[in-house]
Amino acid sequence: MVCHIHHINFIVRDLEAAIARYETILGLPVAHRDELPERGVRAARFRVGETWLVLVQPTRPDTVPGRFLDEHGEGFFLLSLGVESLEAEFDRLGPSWPPGAPRTGADGWQVRDLDATRTLGAQLQFCVDQGS
Amino acid sequence: MVCHIHHINFIVRDLEAAIARYETILGLPVAHRDELPERGVRAARFRVGETWLVLVQPTRPDTVPGRFLDEHGEGFFLLSLGVESLEAEFDRLGPSWPPGAPRTGADGWQVRDLDATRTLGAQLQFCVDQGS
Repeated sequence: MVCHIHHINFIVRDLEAAIARYETILGLPVAHRDELPERGVRAARFRVGETWLVLVQPTRPDTVPGRFLDEHGEGFFLLSLGVESLEAEFDRLGPSWPPGAPRTGADGWQVRDLDATRTLGAQLQFCVDQGS
Repeated sequence: MVCHIHHINFIVRDLEAAIARYETILGLPVAHRDELPERGVRAARFRVGETWLVLVQPTRPDTVPGRFLDEHGEGFFLLSLGVESLEAEFDRLGPSWPPGAPRTGADGWQVRDLDATRTLGAQLQFCVDQGS
């Protein structure tokens, strides 16, 4: 069962400009900056209640985030659903929902994507915090 | 200051099919259904932690949600930021951020959109629950 919205990712072109803009909009200071070279992104996070709002700047065009920016421009990219156990959720969904490859996000988040052809236009994933 | 993610809206083509799909994905039953004829939509909501995940089916093409479906297809539409006071947030932002027209959403939510040309590709709004 999904417990909360763990994080929401927005693709941006210029991370520093986007941080300044979202600090204004949210009235909150940026909480963390993250470099994820294996994903080809630089990111920055705001804590909004129980959810991280994450700004993601692709650093290479040959990656999933880079292709998204090229094809769609800036905007909403991904919704990450917080769960207690990745294995339990995919067991619940059954074999018709094979999990995406395991991936480690910012701060050790363990994520697995859901089949994007079956989520009605939204990129979704399950996520657990490291150690949980 | 923004307190939490109040709701996240996804535009869908067929509300009943989308409810069934999201009940599967989330492992949660749909919590409410809402008819908003003045907005030209039918909607259904899931409670995910402190956030409503809202599926929105346009019922007319000549509306903001209807045009979104026509232009972009299904997918993420809008992020609604929970605040204590709409007036206080727009006072904080100052005159360079004129609020959108007041609108009432599902369950009496009071919302005002942010200027979509300045939110880096995301449609954002502030929201307070009725009476709060």
